[in-house]
Order: sequence, then structure tokens, then C-alpha cells
Amino acid sequence: MDTWFYIADLAGVAVFAIAGTLLAFRKQMDGFGVIVLASVTAVGGGTTRDLILDVPVFWLHDATYFAVIAAAAGVTILWLRLKAYIPLNRLLLADALGIAFFTVLGTEKALNTGVSPVVAIILGTMTAVFGGMLRDVLARDIPMVLKSELYATTCIAGAIIYVALSSWSQTVAMLAAMTVTLVMRFGAIRYGWSLTVFKEHK
Amino acid sequence: MDTWFYIADLAGVAVFAIAGTLLAFRKQMDGFGVIVLASVTAVGGGTTRDLILDVPVFWLHDATYFAVIAAAAGVTILWLRLKAYIPLNRLLLADALGIAFFTVLGTEKALNTGVSPVVAIILGTMTAVFGGMLRDVLARDIPMVLKSELYATTCIAGAIIYVALSSWSQTVAMLAAMTVTLVMRFGAIRYGWSLTVFKEHK
Amino acid sequence: MDTWFYIADLAGVAVFAIAGTLLAFRKQMDGFGVIVLASVTAVGGGTTRDLILDVPVFWLHDATYFAVIAAAAGVTILWLRLKAYIPLNRLLLADALGIAFFTVLGTEKALNTGVSPVVAIILGTMTAVFGGMLRDVLARDIPMVLKSELYATTCIAGAIIYVALSSWSQTVAMLAAMTVTLVMRFGAIRYGWSLTVFKEHK
Repeated sequence: MDTWFYIADLAGVAVFAIAGTLLAFRKQMDGFGVIVLASVTAVGGGTTRDLILDVPVFWLHDATYFAVIAAAAGVTILWLRLKAYIPLNRLLLADALGIAFFTVLGTEKALNTGVSPVVAIILGTMTAVFGGMLRDVLARDIPMVLKSELYATTCIAGAIIYVALSSWSQTVAMLAAMTVTLVMRFGAIRYGWSLTVFKEHK
Repeated sequence: MDTWFYIADLAGVAVFAIAGTLLAFRKQMDGFGVIVLASVTAVGGGTTRDLILDVPVFWLHDATYFAVIAAAAGVTILWLRLKAYIPLNRLLLADALGIAFFTVLGTEKALNTGVSPVVAIILGTMTAVFGGMLRDVLARDIPMVLKSELYATTCIAGAIIYVALSSWSQTVAMLAAMTVTLVMRFGAIRYGWSLTVFKEHK
Repeated sequence: MDTWFYIADLAGVAVFAIAGTLLAFRKQMDGFGVIVLASVTAVGGGTTRDLILDVPVFWLHDATYFAVIAAAAGVTILWLRLKAYIPLNRLLLADALGIAFFTVLGTEKALNTGVSPVVAIILGTMTAVFGGMLRDVLARDIPMVLKSELYATTCIAGAIIYVALSSWSQTVAMLAAMTVTLVMRFGAIRYGWSLTVFKEHK
């Protein structure tokens, strides 16, 4: 199971690094700014989670994560140089995959340290959304998590499902949680699903 | 005394959650962005303080804080749906109460870990201003702490008074420190008190 | 050697505090916003590094750093009141000195905790660029580290050289690393050296 989680973690880091590189491209950034944005997106959420849980930061004794980030950013840059175009939807898609992965991984890691299910759900959500939030703040976008409907909400739903099912079967819990997060997020992107709490106002 | 501090802490979290929700409303945010902004405002300062002090983050083993945030945000949302209007001054007022609470609580917690009075004053101020700073950065306002006259200054004044009086009586120190912070902040909001360090320039 | 590092650390904090004060001046900030911006710039990078390394935050038991920040900001304010003008290049110069200092210090501190050279290079770079990144985010500039050519890159180059030479002689490693960082950064500022990864695009 640990190997499976480790591979999923590296995959999540890779898709977030790609999302960061794509934003850097759209923002006309260049040089090492790309790598900084890719890295912050990829490890920002997990780093914040580990600091709060007071466990060793996941990449502190494992440089593999940065090899993955460099590779993901490198391939994305090459692809962009050949095509010089990337549709916005691809960015949202990569991002949706990343948050689905990271919600489950963050919730699992938090549960393992013995915090309550409610706090585990919050930390799982934080793992998923903080990297992207930092990325958007650095690139001076309003963070997607604040303006997009059903963004953090999809993570919270995924985390709740994971917490509910994980004592029964981790694999089922992971697949169910990721599916729910992805379906809700795709619904929000394609059909504009939303959660309105304020009436329209000026 | 501990119970008293705990209740004050929850009250501080509640007013900061309200301030965060009000800003989310003014910025036309919706859905869970409101909860994210309310949470970041409410726990951002204390979380940073606890990370730096290397003590367990205050909400890690106590989900009560998030119940309070959810309740405060929920009530604010309901109230806004009925009135659909909130004067800017209410936001500043809620914020002033929050920083007065949190300055004292942060300074006290720092003193308890044995740091020097100067560092305790800095950490108390940080507890009070970091949540709002993160909130403003996320919502793409210039942080109030940077542009408002007498913002961080009022916290520093409160923290100094708390440090000076707390060895004599915690209750008196708390009341005196909060009163000074509130009076200075109200003076700054209503009468434009300020602290000019730069001459006007272009 | 420790004394030498301590003095270099204080010097780095001073130049970063100056850079923060200069930006506050350019942004028409006033009052304590100046001190907040100077402090965040000066200690932001090192604080993040220490949190991730899980070592005591460097200023937690040493208020000297804040005396240095207050002095540096105070002298800068006085100078600005007399001259009311500061060329942009001075800001970039102070910044370049700061990142050269902090790259070496951060890399050295990380190596001392026993992390791998790759992670030490990342943490050294983080020490150098995070303070300025926070400063720029707070002041609502696009962070220099993202838009300036050869910014983070100069730190990575310096950190690599330090890692390579430090087992042989710390003094030589420090001088060589700082020289390389400064020369590359000056080249970027004066002659527009850059590292292009994306073709021009719209």
C-alpha cells in the first residue's frame, strides 16, 4: 500500500508541476520563474500539511520529488515550444486530477498521525488546495479555490468519503473518494455546477 | 484563567471568521470560497505563531474551532441574505475586536514558552495581523496592515502593555492591553490618527 | 566560523530590511507598514527554511535580529526623508547582496542538519528568495523571482558551488558562491542576461 501511495504522490506532484508550468506560460513568465511556480504548486500543499502535523516535510529526505518536478516542467516546456498553445481546459483538467490525488493522500497522512476525522478532512483539503492557492497568489490571479464554484467543496466531499470508507478498505476508499472529487469538479468545469450562498448583489 | 482564555480565543476566531466572510461578500465570492477565506482569516495568525513556537497547532486536536468558524460564517451569510448590505465600518470594527483579542492571546502563549518579552511582543502582533494579511492577499487587496495607519502599531502597543502588566495580574493586563488596542484602532478608523514616517513624495 | 556566519546573517537581514523599506517607500506606504514589510523581507526566507528543517526558528531566542531590522529601516527612512529619492537600481543592488548572503547561509544550515546536497541547494535558494517573494506578494508586485531573468537561477548556481566547495574550505566556498551569485545577478540587471525557455507567444 505504501508503494502505491508513494507512486500516487509522485503522480500528484507531477500533474501539479504541469499545472504550475502551464500558468507560468500563460503569464508570459520565463527562465527559472517556471520552475519556482511549478515547485510551489506541486509541494506547497503537502509542505503546509506536514508543518502543521509536525511530521518531517515529505521532500526533506527524498530529492525524488524535485526530479519529478524538473522532469514534468521540462516535458511541458518542450511540448509548449513545439505547440505554443495550451487550452485552458487542460490546465483545469490537470488541476482536477492533482486535487483528487492530494485530497486522499493528505487525509490518509493526517489520519495516520491520530488526529480526529474532522481535522483530517480539513488537512486533506488543505493538501489539495494550498499549492494551487500559493501558485495563483504568486501569479497574481484570484485563487481558483476562492472564485471557482465547487473547488474546495469537491475536496471536502472526497475527504469525507475517504474517512468514512478507509477503515473498511483503503483501496476502495481511495478510488471512491477520487472518483467523487473528479466527477464533481468536471461537472463544475463543464456544466457550471455551483453552490450559491449569497444572492446576487452589487 | 485557562477557560477564560479558551473562550476569548473562540470569540476571536468567530469575529475573524465574520470579517473574512464579509470580505468574501464584498468581493462577490461564493460557494466554499467563503469558508476558505473565513478559515484563513480566523486561524492563519495563530497557526503561524504555533509553527514558529514549535508547539502543537492550536486547532490540530480541537475541531471546536472549525465548528465556531462554520457557525460564524453561516450566521453572517444568513444575515447578508436578509439584508444584502454591510457597511465597511462593521468590517473594520469586527477586525479591530479580533486583533485586540489575538494580540493578548498570542503574547501570553509566547511568554508561556519562555521566549524573551521582545519576541513575545512580535509573536503577539503576528498572531493578530497574519490572518488578516493572508485574507487580504488571497482576495487581492493590499493588506490593511500595510496601508492602514496604526494597524500593526496598535497591536504592538497592546502587546507591550500586556507584557508589562501580566506578571502582576493577567486579567488587568488583558483588559488594559485590549482597551489600548481598541481605542487606538478606533481613533485611527474614525479620526484618521496616523503615524507618518515618510514625507509626501511622488 | 560561527561568529563570521552570525555577522553575515545580521548583514543579510539588514540589507533585506533596507530592500523592504525601499519598496514600502516606492509604494507610498507609511507608519508601521514599513516595519512589517522590512521584517517580512528580512526574516521570511530563513523562517520558512527553519520551519521545514524543524530546527528552532533563528530569531526565536535572539531579539538582535529585530534590533538590526529596526535600525536598518530607521536609517533608510531618515535617508529617504533627507533625499526623498532612491533609484530603482539601489533596490536591486541591495536585493542582490541579500540573496548572495542568504543562499550561502541557508545552504550551510541545511547541510548541517544532514539533508542531501540537492535538498540543501533547494533550501538555500528558498532562504534567499522567499523573503523577497513574500514582500512582493504583500506589496502586490509580481514577485521579482518569477519575472526577473536569472533570479532564482543565480541562487541555485551559488548554492551548487557552495555545496561543491564547502567540504574543502568553508571560507573559499562562501566567497566563491557569493561572487558567482552577485556577478550573475549584476549581469542580469545591467546587461539583461537571461534564460529563455519559452518562445515568444501571445
